[in-house]
Amino acid sequence: MPAFIFDLDGTLVDSVYQHVMAWHAALRECGFDLSIWRVHRRIGMSGGLMIRALARELDMPLEEPIIKRLGELHEQEFKRRISSIAPLPGARDLLAELRDLNIPYIIATSGTQADAGPMLELLGRIGEKIVTREDVKRAKPDPDLFLTAAKRLHVKDVEVIVAGDSVWDMLAARRANFLGVGVLSGGYGQQELEQAGAFRVYADPEEMRRHLDELGVREE
Amino acid sequence: MPAFIFDLDGTLVDSVYQHVMAWHAALRECGFDLSIWRVHRRIGMSGGLMIRALARELDMPLEEPIIKRLGELHEQEFKRRISSIAPLPGARDLLAELRDLNIPYIIATSGTQADAGPMLELLGRIGEKIVTREDVKRAKPDPDLFLTAAKRLHVKDVEVIVAGDSVWDMLAARRANFLGVGVLSGGYGQQELEQAGAFRVYADPEEMRRHLDELGVREE
Repeated sequence: MPAFIFDLDGTLVDSVYQHVMAWHAALRECGFDLSIWRVHRRIGMSGGLMIRALARELDMPLEEPIIKRLGELHEQEFKRRISSIAPLPGARDLLAELRDLNIPYIIATSGTQADAGPMLELLGRIGEKIVTREDVKRAKPDPDLFLTAAKRLHVKDVEVIVAGDSVWDMLAARRANFLGVGVLSGGYGQQELEQAGAFRVYADPEEMRRHLDELGVREE
Repeated sequence: MPAFIFDLDGTLVDSVYQHVMAWHAALRECGFDLSIWRVHRRIGMSGGLMIRALARELDMPLEEPIIKRLGELHEQEFKRRISSIAPLPGARDLLAELRDLNIPYIIATSGTQADAGPMLELLGRIGEKIVTREDVKRAKPDPDLFLTAAKRLHVKDVEVIVAGDSVWDMLAARRANFLGVGVLSGGYGQQELEQAGAFRVYADPEEMRRHLDELGVREE
């Protein structure tokens, strides 16, 4: 039977677009005019890599004080938008069904524990097993988060299915030798996720739950 | 030489994500909990079709008073977000270059004249040639907007290139027998636009401007 590792933002909670707009607002407040879709395509990767990617796209180096200020502004801007975030359809049911079937699962996010807290509350799972930014040296698309998550579940690599909404999830899954499964709920297109290695792509957690048999989950 | 028809939101101005968040907020205020990516994928189509699509995804009929209320709320919510909208990189230069080369172009949007006004201001082109929702019976993905636009330019169908950021632009272009060219700046993936019929896909107006030769534009 498989074990599951879930990304959080865009996979279980509908928070990607709020992160996008919060980063965009933070960048504007620091005088950087970056197109919003370019921010969207970077959500889910480690903060450090994201800043480096944005710096390349802005074609200017970002100094340490600005990087710190960007992070603080993003946090403020994100907090202002938190009330508009909801769990994705089927997210609670999917996790409940896995628990009922005694299938091990864990959440692995590039975000911090502080970021993850309110999202887990939305899922009604404050005590949920989770691996965050603080637990690893490098976040996605490095494989460390998923490797640490699998270790905590005590499962072998052939058993692990990683569910995520971004190509960074799929890339990190491949590097960890785990099977990647995509969801469209983060706003990436199906082909982008498939091209990044997704074995299957579902609309959202609800569609994934209804097709768990396709992922080798048996009700016995 | 070709003639160009440009979509507005997501193609010349960076306003798609603000429209997405405004619709999402309007839907929430009316008690409808729809995932944000589903709203994103409907931006650019006619308001009527969009509401019908959203109603299907919510699996409930939307009555006339609610539809009206949604439209009003969207307008309010969008206005709150207008200050964060910028022209897309290269948009002004692209239009200026076409004017310099005496290449006819026009803008065609599923939005209303009232929606388009502030966007044209951002482009510094208040008197720009434009076809809006009011000029046709059916907006995108019906071909009417683009057919009307071509008529106003007095150009033949073999000459027309439609530039847009959404699959609805590409669909409407195909139905009008015009060549569709995509831009990624609305947040769709490259393959989604190609699959919908885009002959070429550029990152944004800036990349398109630097590759106008690929679209048959000669500097003579």
